[in-house]
Parts: sequence; structure tokens; C-alpha cells
Amino acid sequence: MRDFLPADKARRERVLAVIRERYRAHGFDEIETPVMEEYARLHAGVGGDNEKLAYNVLKRGLDADGIRAAADDPAQLTDLGLRYDLTVPLARFYASHRGELPTVFRAIQIAPVWRAERPQKGRYRQFVQCDIDIIGDASARAEAELAVATLDTLDALGLEGGTIRINDRRALDWMLDSFGFTVDERPGVLITIDKLDKIGPDGVAAELRERGATASAVDAFEAFLRRPQTLEYRPFGEGQIRKALPDAAPDDVVAHLVGIGDAVAAARPGDDVPLVFDPFLVRGMGYYTGTIFELAHPSVSYSLGGGGRYDGMIGRFLGQDVPAVGFSIGFERIVELVDAQADAGATAVVLVHDADVAVAELAALKAALIRQGSRVRLERRTKNLKALLERAAADGYTAFAAVSVGTSPEALEIKPLS
Amino acid sequence: MRDFLPADKARRERVLAVIRERYRAHGFDEIETPVMEEYARLHAGVGGDNEKLAYNVLKRGLDADGIRAAADDPAQLTDLGLRYDLTVPLARFYASHRGELPTVFRAIQIAPVWRAERPQKGRYRQFVQCDIDIIGDASARAEAELAVATLDTLDALGLEGGTIRINDRRALDWMLDSFGFTVDERPGVLITIDKLDKIGPDGVAAELRERGATASAVDAFEAFLRRPQTLEYRPFGEGQIRKALPDAAPDDVVAHLVGIGDAVAAARPGDDVPLVFDPFLVRGMGYYTGTIFELAHPSVSYSLGGGGRYDGMIGRFLGQDVPAVGFSIGFERIVELVDAQADAGATAVVLVHDADVAVAELAALKAALIRQGSRVRLERRTKNLKALLERAAADGYTAFAAVSVGTSPEALEIKPLS
Repeated sequence: MRDFLPADKARRERVLAVIRERYRAHGFDEIETPVMEEYARLHAGVGGDNEKLAYNVLKRGLDADGIRAAADDPAQLTDLGLRYDLTVPLARFYASHRGELPTVFRAIQIAPVWRAERPQKGRYRQFVQCDIDIIGDASARAEAELAVATLDTLDALGLEGGTIRINDRRALDWMLDSFGFTVDERPGVLITIDKLDKIGPDGVAAELRERGATASAVDAFEAFLRRPQTLEYRPFGEGQIRKALPDAAPDDVVAHLVGIGDAVAAARPGDDVPLVFDPFLVRGMGYYTGTIFELAHPSVSYSLGGGGRYDGMIGRFLGQDVPAVGFSIGFERIVELVDAQADAGATAVVLVHDADVAVAELAALKAALIRQGSRVRLERRTKNLKALLERAAADGYTAFAAVSVGTSPEALEIKPLS
Repeated sequence: MRDFLPADKARRERVLAVIRERYRAHGFDEIETPVMEEYARLHAGVGGDNEKLAYNVLKRGLDADGIRAAADDPAQLTDLGLRYDLTVPLARFYASHRGELPTVFRAIQIAPVWRAERPQKGRYRQFVQCDIDIIGDASARAEAELAVATLDTLDALGLEGGTIRINDRRALDWMLDSFGFTVDERPGVLITIDKLDKIGPDGVAAELRERGATASAVDAFEAFLRRPQTLEYRPFGEGQIRKALPDAAPDDVVAHLVGIGDAVAAARPGDDVPLVFDPFLVRGMGYYTGTIFELAHPSVSYSLGGGGRYDGMIGRFLGQDVPAVGFSIGFERIVELVDAQADAGATAVVLVHDADVAVAELAALKAALIRQGSRVRLERRTKNLKALLERAAADGYTAFAAVSVGTSPEALEIKPLS
């Protein structure tokens, strides 16, 4: 968990403002849920591995007997937990407020989540997620709106050239079936396939054999992986999708993917379609039921976000299935890539005053500049004026003026900080 | 703890943006700390009654023996807690990062805090605080900057006419001494005086007698309370301050208060000085050492914020005293008073489309409008178009256009929503 000093915090808020504005332009509406959810809801099995990383909040009012009694059932010690993602809270929110929301609900959530990770570079225990979700639309329109909004937001942040890797869990399942893996083997096989980027076809085949997966299925899959065209996924379109999959891929799944591609192309005319079909994209979460995405950018090798369709999850809370699909951008990664631009517009002025200037004089000068639209900081003059001004420049100040006893607002000489 | 639906969330974000912008204009810089702090720090005795209301986070990795062992020492069950205010985290932040901050550090913190309150109207378990603090300035300049920034922020929110009730803990202590209360009696006497608004002079005198406070002191205090001029505190200035206090009030305390008043008057020429000296203002927190404030507005009977000087607290964490003073506005109260204005500027357009319009056509139309600066929501036409449009208007949309198969961006007829 980190403290954010002024320069970092200002940069984070600037980036968040752009994200929020772009998502709103695309017709999404921001909501907010409490940081704590009920323990039982956080541990309902939909959060995958993240459930184990939840911070649990101690039940209040436990006496010594209560604590002792909880030794054999630690769930008795806790009734609330900090959310580990924004998807479980969204599903709960939607189930609670469905009647007050549009039929197709496009949600923005920009908020921190917590995971008790082991500290390591680039992993934080508190971090901000920026999610957009569309609930109530089973069509490819939903995926397209998410993809276009995400790419436009990257553009607005100066990160043009983003692409979205895309796959469909139904295509994955069908592919594994077609090779002869059993339904029971699927989860393990998917975990191995997810490592394809890292360990390559040889590693995948070896690991599948080690797992004891159906031998004929592993052979068939290995042969498929070694086809020369396997990694030629562009340009995005029906031809490439069918070429990237085994023969006779299910028409509905292919049509859904093609529909997304057509819509993204229509929304971004002139671009190459910024989608890449990747038949081996897995995404970790168990709750995905259809399309899955991952956001890539040429400047970095890691993903900048991702998401997918989770048509079953709302039903867990609502008792009635509602289609849903979401895309989350990795704010902590993106904020590191964005140019830190100072606030446009307002001049930021440091008033460097002698020690003997009366408080009321300073207050009047400061107020006069603020009324003119400036941002103003008072600094008492120190021996090392240069250091003082450098410090202010580092904090985003762009101009300064010296103040002595009797300096009037009209007499202020505002000079740029080099 | 509450969910915020789109209209509420948008209003909250608009109000926060104004507060953030005004505070920044006044030379304050925003920082952020993690929502969790170490248990020991949250329970160091500086948080007053709020410490008891902290949500504590269960230590991770406790086994059954660990839990049983903690039965007699519940502090063993928890190592982190959710912050109950923003002042304790600020003191910890300043102690950690002092070398990276300006000599006089003006902090903005806009963030949620948590208290395990009993649910009741207007009290929430998670609520947002907006604090500004100045660390490193013992002069009246600091109080004046806080007061002016706070009043300007209220003005910018359309809540003109705010006033700040002000007192000084040193004046209170001196006053109690001068009546003959003992140092040990002070905390109890202050708790009673704090109720003056509610129970009046009779109630205060009766309660002090019940408490068994020094009888002669209670008599002297009661006589003082019954002076006719006791409640005539305006206009703010040395004359009124001295008149409101017993004779021979300490010069340094009076001069500090007068200095604040002069500076606020200089910063807001043309206004009556929006300060009211209130010699019986107490403020609950034990850590205040000097000036205390409370923010009032003619539209409501309750306070909209408050703060004070806490010169001793940073020293608790830093091992070296540093002057500090803060002002917190009650965001949850203020947001209820502010007019919910729709976003200025951008048109928000609902595209009502027939069911058979292709996803790609919709994507192209939506993208074209977004490129022109609009905010756009897609809605599939339903039988009850009127209800659909009313719903959209309630969500802040201002215009709509009907889309059929083949509608081109040029052919869109955008009509205002009544």
C-alpha cells in the first residue's frame, strides 16, 4: 500500500478525469458501492483465487468466548471484507437496484480494491480499477461498445495504437472437445494453455502430458499448435478466425466475434481493425462464459487490461440470469505510461514574501490573484531563493512574484519560473 | 454504507471537482494515503472516541491456536484498521515524507473514512471527508488561508453566506482557570459547555453542579454566562473578542484571533467579516491546542464542517513538534445542499434504434456523435417510447434521435428531450 505525494496524486487525478470523461461520453454512467461487502458474498466462489486474498474485517463486539468459539470456524470472526474486485460488488448492486436502472445498464466503476498479495514490484495491496460493464445486452453490440470506449480512452490518454486480443470461452471449450479432452480436464488444460506465450508449444505439450491429460487429445492439440498458420491472426475477420481454429468452428461463436469486429471497424474508420483474434487467450477468471478480451499496447509487453462476458454471475445474486460483459483497464499500469502534463490553463503563482509582511496583506494579494484565475501558494522568503523556486516548479508552479511590506496587487511583478 | 446510483454519483463527483479545484487554487496540494493504517497507530489515543469505532482487519494466517490465544488479547487478532479520520493518517504521512514536502505543507485530502456507528439518519458507516491542513506554520496566516479557502469553496458551490464560528482552546482553558475550575475538572467542564446551544445557561450550570465541579467556579461561570452581552459576538474584532471574554484575556491569544480576522477581511473585501467569535465553542477532539472552527450556513441549523489547530499531534509520530491546523468540510452534508446541475457543455444524446439495425451501423453513428463532442447512449426502441425518453432525461440526457436501418450520420435528426 502506497502513499501518494502531490505530484503523483495530481497525475493520477488527471488520468482518472480523462478516463471518466471518455467513458461518460460513450454513454456509461458511474456508480459507487461501499468498499466492504458481506463476507459470504465475497466468498461465494465467483471471485476465483482473489477470494483467498480478501482482507476480512473483524466482527465487532466479540468477547473472549466468542473468539475462542471462532477458533474452529474462522468465518465466525468476520462478517465483512474489503472487495478484491469490482465485479462481485457490481453484480450485487445490480441485483439490489435493477428496478432503478435502464434496461441495458452501462456502468462505470473507478475505485480501489484490495488484495493481500505478497509485496512485489508492480503489485500493490491497494490499487485502483477502472471498469466498464454492460448488463442486459447479450449481443455483440455490448462487446463493441466496451472495446471502442476502451480504445478511445487509450487514445485520449495519448496511448494511440492499442489493440485488443479477443477470444471466446465457447470457442475454447469447443476446441478442447474437438481434440478429445474431457470436460473434467478442461480447467487444468486451460491453465496450461494460458502459459503458451511463456513456455511455447513444446512446454504446453509437455505440461499437458505431465498432467496426464488424454494422450490422443494432447497429440492432436500439439499437432494443431505446430501448424504454421497458428499465429497469423490478422487482419481480424471471419477468414482469419476460421483459419485460426480447427475446422468446423461453431457458426454462432464465429458470427459473434465477426459482429464485434465489424462494429469496431465501423466506429473507427480509417484504422486497421484494432482487434486480434487469439484462439489461445484464456483469462484466469472462472466466471467467463463467452467473449474474453485483453488490452495490449506496443509500448509494453504486459497487458493493460482485460475483461469478458460473464452471463452467469448476475444470476447468482438475482436468481435470474442476465447477460453481462465488462472491460477493466489496469489503471496502475496505464498511469505509469501517460505523460505527466501540468494542468492546462490556470497560472500557478508562488508569492515569495518577506517575513515582516502582515498576514492581512498576504491574504489580500493571494485573494486578488485567485480571483483572476490563478492558483497561488505563499512562501516565506528563505536565504536560498533558488532552491525555493526550484521546489515550487517541481510542484507544478509556473510563475512567482516577490512581496514586501506594502506591495499592492497592482504592483505585483509576476515572472515565469524558468 | 450506501450504494450510489448514477444520478447521485454524478452529483457527488461534480461537487468534489469544485472542492478540489478551489482548494488547489488556494495553493493546497492533494495527497492520498492507504485506507488501512496500522492498528497501533489508529489506537494511539489521538483519535478520541473515534478509535472505538474503527473497523479492524483480521490478521492473516492465524491458525486455531493463534485465534484461541488472542481471546485474552483481542489486539492479537488484528494488525490493520480502516481509518476513522484523515488527520491521523496525515500526521503519519507527514512524519514519513517530511523531506519530500515543502516547509509549509498545505494538504488536501478528499477520501472516505469508516466508523462503525449505529445506523441512524444522516450518519453513515462510510463517508467522504474533505480536509485541508497546513503543517509547519504557527502563525494566524495558516488559519486565515484555511478559512478563506473554505468560504470560497462554499461560494463556488452556490452556498454563499457561510460563516465560521471561531474560538481558541487556550482562551477556553484560561477562562476556566480564571473562574477557578481546576485543571482536572477541565475536560468534564468542556463537555458540559459544549451543550450550551442545546441546554442553555441554566442547563449548563445545573449539570456542572451535578458533576460536583468547584462550587465557587460554577457560580462565577454562571454569572458570566448570564451577562447580557455574552451572546453579542459581532462584528468580529478585538473589541468584541475582549467583550465576550472575562477581563484581562491573554494578549497573544486575542492577537492571534484578531490576525485571522484581519486576514479574512483583507481576502474578502466588501463582505462583513464572515467570522463569529464564540467563547463557548469547544469542538470534541482532545487533540486541539489552539484555534478551533466550525462552519455554519444560514440554510441549516447544523454545522457544515470544522477544524482546529493541533500542534502536538505531528510530534506523536515525528518525535518533534510541528505546528498544524486543519479544516474539514462535511461533504455528505454539503452535497445534499448543492443544486444538482447537469454537466455544462456537451450534448447528451440517446440514439433510439430499431431492433434490426446492425451493430456496426450503430457503432458508426455513436462514434460520429462522440467525435462531435456528444455523450451518447444507445437504446433499443421499446413500445413505450415516452417512458424510455423520460428515463433518459432523468439520467441527464438532453436530446434524442431515431435510428432505422440505413440512417447515416448526416441524416440523424437530433431533437431536444423536453
